[in-house]
Amino acid sequence: MVPMTQANTTTEPTPVTVLGLGDMGRALAGAFLSAGHPTTIWNRSPGKGEDLVARGAVRAASAEEAVRASGLVVVCLVDYDASDAVLEPLAEALRGRVLVNLTSDTPNRSRQAAAWAEKHSLSYLDGAIMVPVDVVGSADALIFHSGDRAAFEAHESTLKALGEPATFLGEDHGLAAAYDMAMLDFFYGAMGGLVHAFALARAEGVDGASLAPYLNTIAGILPPIAAYTATDIDTRTYTGEGANLAMMAASVDHILHTAKDRGLDVSQLTALKGIADRAIAEGHGPESWSSIVEVMAADR
Amino acid sequence: MVPMTQANTTTEPTPVTVLGLGDMGRALAGAFLSAGHPTTIWNRSPGKGEDLVARGAVRAASAEEAVRASGLVVVCLVDYDASDAVLEPLAEALRGRVLVNLTSDTPNRSRQAAAWAEKHSLSYLDGAIMVPVDVVGSADALIFHSGDRAAFEAHESTLKALGEPATFLGEDHGLAAAYDMAMLDFFYGAMGGLVHAFALARAEGVDGASLAPYLNTIAGILPPIAAYTATDIDTRTYTGEGANLAMMAASVDHILHTAKDRGLDVSQLTALKGIADRAIAEGHGPESWSSIVEVMAADR
Repeated sequence: MVPMTQANTTTEPTPVTVLGLGDMGRALAGAFLSAGHPTTIWNRSPGKGEDLVARGAVRAASAEEAVRASGLVVVCLVDYDASDAVLEPLAEALRGRVLVNLTSDTPNRSRQAAAWAEKHSLSYLDGAIMVPVDVVGSADALIFHSGDRAAFEAHESTLKALGEPATFLGEDHGLAAAYDMAMLDFFYGAMGGLVHAFALARAEGVDGASLAPYLNTIAGILPPIAAYTATDIDTRTYTGEGANLAMMAASVDHILHTAKDRGLDVSQLTALKGIADRAIAEGHGPESWSSIVEVMAADR
Repeated sequence: MVPMTQANTTTEPTPVTVLGLGDMGRALAGAFLSAGHPTTIWNRSPGKGEDLVARGAVRAASAEEAVRASGLVVVCLVDYDASDAVLEPLAEALRGRVLVNLTSDTPNRSRQAAAWAEKHSLSYLDGAIMVPVDVVGSADALIFHSGDRAAFEAHESTLKALGEPATFLGEDHGLAAAYDMAMLDFFYGAMGGLVHAFALARAEGVDGASLAPYLNTIAGILPPIAAYTATDIDTRTYTGEGANLAMMAASVDHILHTAKDRGLDVSQLTALKGIADRAIAEGHGPESWSSIVEVMAADR
């Protein structure tokens, strides 16, 4: 009786189709194969994914054939111009299936794709992959989903094959891209400052290896700062902690002059100083650094 | 015998003078008092440091009297304009003592102060306090020193009263300020991106509290990135890891357009995109992100 019971409660792995076999598309298909899902693959130009076929993937002769092979269709292309072009002729074939678009682009492109899906009565999830290709399929590969909640819940266990934290953010299809863009906005601010810090250090006779351990100290204080900045911004009361905006703007000015004296590009620092100065001009000087959001945002 | 031996090997705490009793100056004097050092204090305007006097500090009637009270003189004022003004008339009184300037300013101002000290044959250390006021005196209060190595070694144990990691960076008096500026350069890049990320999220309907935990994920990946960026920059071979500059510049462009669509200030992102585009125009597109240093720096 026991084996019979087990057989009854074990569902067969869901068949999955992956459209687009760039670096990321191949990683997605590979993760589905590793988790035992029958996987159908298709790419606009031929010759990609031989390794996946060797591992058991079925190569479809056309995008439509690929879509009709599975109840869950994942698309990952270079941008939404590409995914729109591939998906447009597939509306009929996609009906009754779940479409998950993991292509990276802006929140508005995601919402436009969702409007197209709604017009054709398609079940649509829009996602964002927050990790590099080589992390996809591992336990800590963060992948966001937003849009059709029922579709997410029906396929959550399958989507976890791509990364255990398959996170549903809400029913606005733009949310996955919005979180993606906001996280990258912080990331690239830090990455711009990081390289500029090394450039400044080098100009002052300090090599990168000597500076790097101290930059880790800076990285380490960012999480608590992010937490109280979030509170400041959500409540729009910029009490924060530590130094006030006026003192911090003076620090930015010190850095800017040091960099300028060394002939370094100061365009990023000039932009930041301009924002801080405008916030101070509007009376935020005694408030926390996070009050600069008031002059960054259009909704003030 | 044992108590006698102990008494012989225990040196009396070094007398210390602190010039400047702003928030940071008071924290420095308080840390010396806590460590048992006879502490003399002075401030240009009266009325500051009553709590220090109550704890045993001696208030000097003049800056010169304060200097003559101790072999180690620490100055911490608002900037080098202020510290130059205070120190200029004290050259004679400072002879034979060690002067430690913990005022925050640019590396060049530190080097100018060192030139003045050399002209007067003074023993001079230039430092930078890398922690907020309330952390001064604790075990993990990072304070940099640079300049006169013998002076640092003679007073290292006393300077550790301000923070255990009393770190001597080298004999160039500008080094403490250079490390300070470079660390702050990274910090403010991250802090500009951080607030912009919250502004972008809010414009897309995402509150700060929802976004903040994911920003910690970004902060967590920065230390390994700083390590390999340092190697790239020191070797000037931009092989790095992960995505190449061209792909990352496309990401910056996505964020920029998302922010622009929402009416947000895009001056920081525009500056960063401009730097990345110039690096790509010079052929660095297939290289790592850190290759942007080549168009930031004047010494290329």
